[in-house]
Amino acid sequence: MMVSAKTSETCRPSLKLRFVNLDTGRENVAVISRRSQALRPDVFRGFSRVQIQCGDKTLLATLLITDDETLVGTDELGLAAPAFRRISEPENARATVSPAPPPKSLDFVRSKIQGDVLNPAEIKTIVDDLINHRYSELEIAAFLVATARLMTSEEMLSLTSSMAVAGTQLRWQQPMIVDKHCIGGIPGNRTSMIVVPIVAAHGLTMPKTSSRAITSPAGTADTMEVLAKVDINPDRMKQVVETCGGCLVWGGHVNLSPADDILISVERVLGLDTIEQMVASIMSKKIAAGVTHLLVDIPIGSSSKVRTPAEALRLRKLFELVGDHFGIAVEVVTTEGRQPIGCGVGPFLEAKDVMAVLENRPDAPQDLREKSLNLAAHLLEYDPALRGGTGYARALELLESGAALQKLQSIIAAQGEPPHPVNLGQLRRDIVASKDGIINGIDCLRINRIARIAGAPIDKGAGIQIFRKIGDRVAKGDPLYRIFASEASGYDLAVRASCEQDGISIDHSPSVDVRTS
Amino acid sequence: MMVSAKTSETCRPSLKLRFVNLDTGRENVAVISRRSQALRPDVFRGFSRVQIQCGDKTLLATLLITDDETLVGTDELGLAAPAFRRISEPENARATVSPAPPPKSLDFVRSKIQGDVLNPAEIKTIVDDLINHRYSELEIAAFLVATARLMTSEEMLSLTSSMAVAGTQLRWQQPMIVDKHCIGGIPGNRTSMIVVPIVAAHGLTMPKTSSRAITSPAGTADTMEVLAKVDINPDRMKQVVETCGGCLVWGGHVNLSPADDILISVERVLGLDTIEQMVASIMSKKIAAGVTHLLVDIPIGSSSKVRTPAEALRLRKLFELVGDHFGIAVEVVTTEGRQPIGCGVGPFLEAKDVMAVLENRPDAPQDLREKSLNLAAHLLEYDPALRGGTGYARALELLESGAALQKLQSIIAAQGEPPHPVNLGQLRRDIVASKDGIINGIDCLRINRIARIAGAPIDKGAGIQIFRKIGDRVAKGDPLYRIFASEASGYDLAVRASCEQDGISIDHSPSVDVRTS
Repeated sequence: MMVSAKTSETCRPSLKLRFVNLDTGRENVAVISRRSQALRPDVFRGFSRVQIQCGDKTLLATLLITDDETLVGTDELGLAAPAFRRISEPENARATVSPAPPPKSLDFVRSKIQGDVLNPAEIKTIVDDLINHRYSELEIAAFLVATARLMTSEEMLSLTSSMAVAGTQLRWQQPMIVDKHCIGGIPGNRTSMIVVPIVAAHGLTMPKTSSRAITSPAGTADTMEVLAKVDINPDRMKQVVETCGGCLVWGGHVNLSPADDILISVERVLGLDTIEQMVASIMSKKIAAGVTHLLVDIPIGSSSKVRTPAEALRLRKLFELVGDHFGIAVEVVTTEGRQPIGCGVGPFLEAKDVMAVLENRPDAPQDLREKSLNLAAHLLEYDPALRGGTGYARALELLESGAALQKLQSIIAAQGEPPHPVNLGQLRRDIVASKDGIINGIDCLRINRIARIAGAPIDKGAGIQIFRKIGDRVAKGDPLYRIFASEASGYDLAVRASCEQDGISIDHSPSVDVRTS
Repeated sequence: MMVSAKTSETCRPSLKLRFVNLDTGRENVAVISRRSQALRPDVFRGFSRVQIQCGDKTLLATLLITDDETLVGTDELGLAAPAFRRISEPENARATVSPAPPPKSLDFVRSKIQGDVLNPAEIKTIVDDLINHRYSELEIAAFLVATARLMTSEEMLSLTSSMAVAGTQLRWQQPMIVDKHCIGGIPGNRTSMIVVPIVAAHGLTMPKTSSRAITSPAGTADTMEVLAKVDINPDRMKQVVETCGGCLVWGGHVNLSPADDILISVERVLGLDTIEQMVASIMSKKIAAGVTHLLVDIPIGSSSKVRTPAEALRLRKLFELVGDHFGIAVEVVTTEGRQPIGCGVGPFLEAKDVMAVLENRPDAPQDLREKSLNLAAHLLEYDPALRGGTGYARALELLESGAALQKLQSIIAAQGEPPHPVNLGQLRRDIVASKDGIINGIDCLRINRIARIAGAPIDKGAGIQIFRKIGDRVAKGDPLYRIFASEASGYDLAVRASCEQDGISIDHSPSVDVRTS
């Protein structure tokens, strides 16, 4: 038997909390003086994990040691910004520090590494330890890698269900809650901001939560934030949906799947993208959001997340399996994923595309318009009152009549003003075709990368406006796209990146070949 | 194509290096001001990995962000202690910071996660990236977990060989270099300090490198440091071996397998102990050390690393496989692992046991003496000049004649004085039997734990002296062992831990049962 944590703490010296001005991202970091009585060198070393007890609050943190007593004195316990915020106690509150016990559920991770199948209770314990920040990043990585190679359907269902109940759970009066989800990767592609108002204008309920960009130049939440406030808590979100039948808010504040947010942050570093984990991640959030009918959009293309119809089929089966298990009607559609959808890439430019479609302007991007109408048509067909096959006509009617535009305006009014006005970047450069020919490919990853270097999504006015798409004929010197930025440093780097590789491939057309030969 | 790192750096503002008084253990940590021009929020966030360029030196580090410009100014780049030491440039030297590209070999780790078998070149790239500190801890964890489930023999050989050439490689004049290695876990058990002088006194060459304790109360290096300096570089080590035919130094300074040191630090956190990784770890160091004949000691016991003869057999086969491949004669012996060897646990007390054996004192622990003689006998039989079967007699002769003692004294003299004199802890408490009976079990993990809480190995005078072993009859109130410590805090905790669970199990003997019933 080990000395229990409780017993050991009683004789640990208590320290005074002190704020240390360090932003450590998602990690909790504590700082202690090397001469502190609480620091026992046999148990504490730099970057070891410690448990901080302050009143009845417990926090796990990574420990740094300092010799600088002006930073943290011998009777103090320094907490870097995120840890100080999470413990939410004033400076000088008394706290004790002890070595962090490894999370109990790490035994299950080790079993999984050895090839065992985990039962629902074991997976639930892991998820509980995750959301209570008991896992260090390397322990999270161990769990992800252990489950990446083989996760049974039962394990995937357990993980989905444990994650779904770990955060906020939205419940609605309406019997039918519809949603759409795109697995992502395509620049532009702001269909949600068109689909939600069409569907809500028809009378269905569509409480859409979206993500902010992580590695892309804009997430739907970033783009919506050009027009309205998106950082809204669950109660306020419910009021908006009550009033408008729909919303477009940032999912982060709603906290639908905190475990998933943690797993994703490590998956990204490792570049892991297992489809079982992706489905568990998406579906846990849909279950928590109370969705009853879900349309999943899988773009297929060589620079998209899913590259072949076979991969898309496998993914569809998993979505259907999880949907059936949790009583969610899931429909999966595959869409064009070879090139950006719409013209704008970056929050401001994408919002401009969305408004052009909703305002029925002649210069509105037709691909974005068509895709949005098709997705809306699928969702509208969930309405039992609508005659089969008439979804598209109904969607078109709601768009052309201005009902959808009016609905988005009322959603904007209900969510409130955006945090600050956004202007399009004043630094602009056209990137032109280096030869005559026909465009036969657009590298979505490259376009995203250049827009991001230009400053998107932090600089909402930065991005790319695309002038030509696949199949278009261009002459040497014709503008292919325009880079927008607000700051010189990002602008210079983006222009340079674009000059090195613009992401557009042009095929010499036969007629050109004939003329020049 | 991506913007090359070189291109991007040219327009990154250069910053002045500044020392930040934070001990971050093994991790490189950099600190930057939130208002720094070099900080582009789209690419840097707290706890992201960055690449620091200073002249022709490159360093990867974890980034923290501060709003406190007295800590790090807007034109400065703060480096915490280990990073500042590793870059070894003065304050105010110019440096640039850019987002760290993920290590290229992470692609191979991802292949391994998907179940592929890695070829030797791929494994070599991973090891190169490891020793150049290009892997974050979570990436190291991903590699370990990916290889924990299945490592083919070829992969294990590749890993061994890549690790063996990644650090210092010792080469010797002598054609035969003998060594012994215990896979560890048993308290006391300081046989190396007896075996090396016996074998060297005979005339064989035994350049022993040992580890310091990581989770145990003493490593051989900690115990030897009670008597002599052990922190010796490879050149000095060679001189000692030239003079004495043997040495007992700390392997850390010799840097035989830096990749292994990195892997072990993460394995420990995860509690992973795959036998393929263990064999690759041990054998890479033996190859790097130029060992030609190796004796491996595998203690078997319920609280030991290896619990059954079947496990020991599997481990033996792996050692033999790797030994044969690299031309090292490997012999594996299994030994008693149910209880501590010798009486002392902790550096001072263990050194006392060793000296008692070498001085042929009547109170010397017989189990330590016998085990050391047997191991030495195996090693001596490697000498072609020695008649088969006479190894034990020769070992006994060298011990009883005082030749072994004299040899250890000359090794001590050659290595030099210990860094500071060590005294046995003045705080002492006897732990006594709670009932009459026969001792039928000693929990090695528990004994190690209590000795460590008492302060070992940092406090070299702390530890446990064991009075009774398995099979001994005790009466209620008889002392079982004595706890030693120098500091009150560790002493109190160790005594309390021991009172909760002393680690000794006592069976009521039949005669006692008869008397009390």
